[in-house]
This record gives sequence, structure tokens and C-alpha cells, in this order.
Amino acid sequence: MLMDDMGWGDLGVNGDPSRETPYLDRLAAEGMQFTDFYAGSPLCSPSRAALLTGRLPIRNGFYTTNIHARNSYIPQEMVGGISRSEILISELLAKTNYRNKIIGKWHLGHSKSEYYPWNRGFHEFFGSFGIHSNPHDNVKMPNVPLFRNDKMIGRYYENILIDRKNQQSDILKNFTQEAIEFIQQESAKGNPFFLYWTPDTLHAPTYRSAEFVGRSMKNSSYGDALIQMDHSIQAIIETIRNEPCLQNNTFVFFTSDNGPALTSRADAGRNGPFLCGKQTTFEGGFREPAIAWWPTKIAPGTINRHISTHMDLFLTIATIAQISVPDDRHYDSNDLTKVMFNSSHENQNASMFYYRGDTLMAIRHGSYKAHYWTFSTPPEELRVGINFCPGQNVVNLTTSQLTNHTELPLLFHLYRDPAERFAINPKTKEYKENIKILNKIRDEHQRQLKPGKPELNYCDQAVMSWSPPGCETINMCLPIPKSSPYLCEWPH
Amino acid sequence: MLMDDMGWGDLGVNGDPSRETPYLDRLAAEGMQFTDFYAGSPLCSPSRAALLTGRLPIRNGFYTTNIHARNSYIPQEMVGGISRSEILISELLAKTNYRNKIIGKWHLGHSKSEYYPWNRGFHEFFGSFGIHSNPHDNVKMPNVPLFRNDKMIGRYYENILIDRKNQQSDILKNFTQEAIEFIQQESAKGNPFFLYWTPDTLHAPTYRSAEFVGRSMKNSSYGDALIQMDHSIQAIIETIRNEPCLQNNTFVFFTSDNGPALTSRADAGRNGPFLCGKQTTFEGGFREPAIAWWPTKIAPGTINRHISTHMDLFLTIATIAQISVPDDRHYDSNDLTKVMFNSSHENQNASMFYYRGDTLMAIRHGSYKAHYWTFSTPPEELRVGINFCPGQNVVNLTTSQLTNHTELPLLFHLYRDPAERFAINPKTKEYKENIKILNKIRDEHQRQLKPGKPELNYCDQAVMSWSPPGCETINMCLPIPKSSPYLCEWPH
Repeated sequence: MLMDDMGWGDLGVNGDPSRETPYLDRLAAEGMQFTDFYAGSPLCSPSRAALLTGRLPIRNGFYTTNIHARNSYIPQEMVGGISRSEILISELLAKTNYRNKIIGKWHLGHSKSEYYPWNRGFHEFFGSFGIHSNPHDNVKMPNVPLFRNDKMIGRYYENILIDRKNQQSDILKNFTQEAIEFIQQESAKGNPFFLYWTPDTLHAPTYRSAEFVGRSMKNSSYGDALIQMDHSIQAIIETIRNEPCLQNNTFVFFTSDNGPALTSRADAGRNGPFLCGKQTTFEGGFREPAIAWWPTKIAPGTINRHISTHMDLFLTIATIAQISVPDDRHYDSNDLTKVMFNSSHENQNASMFYYRGDTLMAIRHGSYKAHYWTFSTPPEELRVGINFCPGQNVVNLTTSQLTNHTELPLLFHLYRDPAERFAINPKTKEYKENIKILNKIRDEHQRQLKPGKPELNYCDQAVMSWSPPGCETINMCLPIPKSSPYLCEWPH
Repeated sequence: MLMDDMGWGDLGVNGDPSRETPYLDRLAAEGMQFTDFYAGSPLCSPSRAALLTGRLPIRNGFYTTNIHARNSYIPQEMVGGISRSEILISELLAKTNYRNKIIGKWHLGHSKSEYYPWNRGFHEFFGSFGIHSNPHDNVKMPNVPLFRNDKMIGRYYENILIDRKNQQSDILKNFTQEAIEFIQQESAKGNPFFLYWTPDTLHAPTYRSAEFVGRSMKNSSYGDALIQMDHSIQAIIETIRNEPCLQNNTFVFFTSDNGPALTSRADAGRNGPFLCGKQTTFEGGFREPAIAWWPTKIAPGTINRHISTHMDLFLTIATIAQISVPDDRHYDSNDLTKVMFNSSHENQNASMFYYRGDTLMAIRHGSYKAHYWTFSTPPEELRVGINFCPGQNVVNLTTSQLTNHTELPLLFHLYRDPAERFAINPKTKEYKENIKILNKIRDEHQRQLKPGKPELNYCDQAVMSWSPPGCETINMCLPIPKSSPYLCEWPH
């Protein structure tokens, strides 16, 4: 279960004062919480690519070299996608007897058939290539299509209803019902299955069903949507819980794709005690809520406070499914099965690499994090009201220009100072000892790194979803403009 | 149980990523958590005076008029204290058959015998008038004395050992042992008792016992001390739990006196998702961890998300002890017994008044908080490294000058935006409707308010603890300088 733009601080068990996720809190109490769990990237597409490949975006190609240290993703005009040379966990599972389904947002490419989820190990698909975003005019940009398997069945804001004015829609209900039916069907058939449930409900513009409007103390669409999400997850988990064989054999992992979209101001997720949100390499950008649940395997109420990541799910799922992974490539993935099932601390020596595009901005190892480069929101975006660190400014750290600290990295102790407020004095023994360790990890990482071919450099209006597979059946094809590729602009 | 400078965000159940308060988290799971619980003041002395009198500092005299909107407390040179005309909960309880003890920091005055805790309803005292602070030279300032009942038994850093260099001391152990013995003794005698357990361990300079050094993932004295505190509370609660009659009849409330001392940088408590800390009228200054525990009376795992305060404990304790309170004065206190024992939401219409000294800075009612005046840290203190909002700056809100917003108050929705980052646009219906409600509450509050005589205006070197009661017995009296009262200076 992969949320979209949900924050670490949104969970009641992570301290949200309004405590509006009682079911997820129960899941955490019944399973294992990872307090120091990270995304592979501070935004959607590269984060998802990292999760499914077990590899950092710098390796799997989900970055841009058009400009240094800029975030890139897969908007409609993106030419690139998840390369054929990358192997997704869904592809490995599909080679065995697993039945795989993705429900929700794909976001790994759509310009060529090799990027389609149904060609990348997912037998079933109910969702969209990208986010539900805004209504479009179908002239400059088509509305985002919704698919069932390899055929589009409609477009958001056309036959797939989202009431933008009242921020209402029943899409999450549909995503939930699809999940329940898939689980019940595959379970009835006795099939092992992999469900990648990733609704984009919590991504702006958020929506909720009519009966959830006004339910949240937060008096916001995001708040209501979060409550509906908690209910949806309850419905899915109870489907598993009610079937003893399913409960005994189903591994559930809950997390989110990146930090909260703080630039959406108050109608967004929470970064808890951390600094900044989505788009940044501060803790608020990468730190994710994370719960592992498997009552017969994972001891209830356990907490793991070491570094683990989305990418770890790759080897973890492979181990659970007892499949081997190709040994021809580097994985940024640690198998978490012993951590979860034996409450081991195998992940205590893990390292975390915070990339922004092509640039390694920061590294964490143990309690210490070093920022080699810093960047928050550029001045031209601040001027138009975009701000990834609203109300949080740490001098020399949340810089609005890409700033080089490689000569004297900024060092923080993340347990003592989770908010990254108090850089450790470079004159101290603590600094000198720990920066040496981190620099060594950096050198080793960079020495062995072979960056993948950057996939997110070229854009083209022609690759938008004008006429996706299935459009002709429902008469929703739109004329495709002439191809004219250009270097994508990445503003931050 | 009243902590000192502990932050809302220090509890595992309030989202501290290092989850180092397992016993307090268990207490919360067994009892009721108050998420929206407030101090009466953002610093020590006025906060404690408010708790024990059930009245705001502006009423009970714990403020200064030397300068507007400045925080004041009871340093050694303070002439004032808790006026005879104020009635403490301990005094009411002492009129019945309750046996009362204070262990830890008094901080309500020491210049006259009428301010001594043993003259204000506490039959027993083990602790100090003020914090353990720094070692002093006994010439410009005496070291702080420790008392057993009405006699001093030593001075901190002299015969009461605190190793400043290694931040070690066994004082918390002594405070804990005293609590256990008191509970056991009174319980054996069948006495009802009131224990006001308020160790100043977590106040800078923090200390911990040798066996706790290095225990915390935070790699800080504060972190170790917090773990030791959790252990100490466990030892005290287990004393109660192990005696069925005691467990059935003992109400335990855990909280802290004010927000974390963020100016102590990383070796301090946590403000969780809130803005700024101690000394400020932002949420980080006033919001407190709060757990009510009474297994036979309070349903486990309950959460109350409405406004409640330290001052509420006054009427709550009175109701539990079945004593009536004098009706000749205004209390800022709501009886929480129905909230706790019947899970009622009686406190849902409560209001919160955020004072800084003589000035009503902000008001909260329901979800909304209006700032009428703002002030964080003055520039002259910022220049010397004092900062009550490090790494957190909200334009127009965390002002470094006292700033008047009474014409157009800054309005925040505290569930949608607990960090006070996004002021509601004054042009919106939401603003207009809610500011009207808050302004009406302010007008009514100010109309009926009769400020108490300010107690914290005068200082005098002569009132310091040179020769406190009992000093002659242990030969620790120091010469008292000539009295020379002056107006105290309050820098922030």
C-alpha cells in the first residue's frame, strides 16, 4: 500500500495531534513500525521506480541531466519511462505463479508500449498513468485517462467524476472495491498474489466521497480524504483478516511515496517533527510512515529505528516469494525479513543516500546525516508562492540556491535533532570522527556508481495521452499533435 | 507528576522518532491522553502558580508590569512569591485529612516565610526553592539549597553532588525513592495523600545517573535523563500498581510545566509538530504532554482532543477529593472528572488564553487560534545566541519585536495547521466568522478580568538563599548582604 504525498506525521502513532488514523494506528500496534523509513526520492515517479526496481533513481534512470540537482518526474509530456533493462519486482513475480495487480497511479512512463504496466509484470491494472491532476482542455493537454487492464475506460473529469469545486469523488471507493475483489478472487483460486495498491487520493487536488466531507477535525479536504483512506485500508485489511488462510499468508506493507506537499499549504500532509517536505533532501522530504503487518510472522507493537527504505521492499518481497533476483546489477536494497520476522537489527548499519536528480545531496549513516549540497526552493518559485519549507528556515541549510558544502559538509545527529536545526560544530571531535565515516561512505558509493541513462530529459506534446490504448472503443481518442521533442524544463 | 521543560514531542506516543519513553507510552495506552493540553504560562514559576491555584498568572500575580509582555519568574533575587491571598490546592487538601508532599522544585517564592511550601499546605518537602542551575560562588550568588521539610540539608554542587562536566547526578534517584517511600508510608497508614512530584532533572543543565549515561539514541544528556525519568516513573507507578487498594484509589496525572527549552539547542526537549518552544505564545511554548491514569476509573487508550489546561487540575483534584473551593474568586479551571471518567467531551467549548506577562497575546477556542500580539526573541538576545524559535520562522508571526495585530489578528486553524504556518486569509468567510467569535471571547475575558497585584516586579540580592531555614544546623549559612530592592529586568 503506497500512499501519495502522505506525510510521516499524518499517522496518529507518529504524533498527529488530531489522531485521525485509528485503523492504521491499530495496524502499527499489531505489527512493526519503522520510524526511520525512507523513500528513494523526494517525489513521485523516481520514488516509485526505486521501490519497484530496488535501485536508486540514479541507477534506474529516473533522473534528469538537463540541469544539476533538479527534481524530475513523469508529466504527460514525458518521453522517457522505466527502461526495459530495469527489472521490476512485478516482473520477477510474474515469472512464478504470482498474479499481480496495480490499482492506482503508475507514473513510470506511457510514451511507448514497453512502459505500460501490463507489459511490466502486472496482469491487471485499474488506474491511471499519472495523477488525476486538474481538468484539462483536451487541446493543449488531454485529460488523464483511467484504465482497466490494457484499455482506457474513461478520462478524469469527463466520465470519471471529480467535483473540483467541492473536492468530491468516489474514485477511492472504486480503488478499494477493486482491491477487495482482487484479493477475494485470487484467494478463492488459491493463487499467490501481489497487489500494488497505490491510490493518488491524497495528492493535490485531494478529494473524498460525499459521506466523508467535514469528517475531519482538520476542516480540510486532505483531512477528510485521510480519514476515508483509513477506512479504505480497514476494509481491505479486514478482507484479509476474515480469511484465516489469507491472514496467515499475506504480508502487508504500508507507506507513502514521498514527503508531504507542503507547498499546498494547510491542505496537505504533515512532516511531523521533520524539516521541509516533498521535493527536498531534508528529513521531511524523504521520511515516510511505514508499517509492516503479518500477524503470524511479525510480533505486535515492535519498532525498528534503523535506516530502511522503499528499495528494501524489492529484496524483501523477493525473499518472501522465494524468488531469486538477477545478479547482474547493483541493488540498493536490504532484505528486511529478518528485521521483521526475527526482530533483528540487521539494518542497523544501513546507509541512506539522498539524491536530488543527478546530485548526491546528503548521506545518512547510523545517527548522522551530512549535507554535501543544499537546496530548497529557488527564488523565482518563492516569488510565485511555491515554498517547500514554509515556516521552516535553517540558515545555511534550507538554501534557495544549490549550495556546495562538499568542503565542509553540514553534519546533524538525527536522533538528538530530528528537525535538522543544529549543525554540529566542525571543530568538535564528534564532527571530525563522523564526517570521516560519512565521507568514506560517499567516496565508496561514488567510486562504484554507474549512473543509468537519464530517462527524464526529453518532453514532447505528442506523447501525451491523446489516444491511449482502448480510446477507440469508447470513442475518446483525441488527435495527436506532431512530434517535437524538447529538453524538459525542471524548475526545482 | 510535573516535568520541567519536557516537550510535547518527547513522548513516543506523541511521535518522537526515537521512541524512548516506553513506560510513559504504556501509561498513555492504559489511560487517557490529552492532545490539546496547555500550561498556564510558557515558563516555570507562573506555570506552577497557575497549576496550584487554578488561576491564570494575570490573576494570581505571577507576572511583571515592569515592561509589557515580558516573561518573569522566580530567580534567587526575587522578592515576590505566591501571595497569601491565593489558595493552593495543597492548602485545601490540607484542611481535610490529606497528607501532602512536594518533591522537587517549588519555584513559588522564598523571600518570606509565607511563601515556603511548608506554610502553603505541604506537610512534607524534599527539594529546592528553584532550579539546580549552575554552580555559584556563594559571594555574588549562593548555591541553591536542598530542603527536607522546613530545613535545608545542603546545597547543590556542594554536598549535593552534580557533576557538571559529565552531567551526572543521582538527584532523580533520590526524588524517586522519596516518592516511593512516601506513597508506601501513607498507604500503610491508610492516609489519603497528595504527591506533587516535580523533579527538575530535564531542566538545563540536565543530569543523569552513571548507569544511564549513553543509553539514549539521542547521544545527549537530555536524552539519557528522559530515559531515566521514564524508568523513575515506572518505579513510582509500579509501587501503586502492586498494591490493589492503592491502584483502585490513586489518580495519577503526568504533564510538564512549559514547552521545551529550544534555546538549549539539541540538548533539550522536543516541540513535536508545533512552533517554537518555552518562552513563546506559539503552540510549542504552551502545549504539554498529558496523561491521566487511573485504571479502575479511566478507560484505556482514550484520547481527548479538546482544550484543557494545568489549571483544570485544580478543580479536578478538588472534585476527586470531594472538597469544595472558595467561591470568592474566579478560577480558570474546568473540572475534568467527567471528561476522564465518563469519556465526556465537556471540555469541547473551553477557551485558552495565552499570556506573556501582563499581555494577552493569543486566544484559542475550538480549532481556531488568534494572535493579537506576537513576539519571539528580541534582537539583542538573538545576537548573543538565545533563540526561542531556532529553525522556525513564520513571517509576521515569530516577530522579534512585540508586534500589535489587534486590528487584524492572525488566525490559524490548529488541527489543519498545528505548526501555525498558514494564517487564514482575512478576506475569507472562515476568517470573518471565527475572528468574531474569538474577539467576543477576548472582550468578555478582558471585561471581567481583575488582574492580581504583580508579584514579580522587585528583585533584591538580600533575599537570595544565603541563610535559609536550617542553615545553622549544618553550618551552611552565608552572610546576608544589605537589602537594596530594585526593579527586576526581564530580557524577553
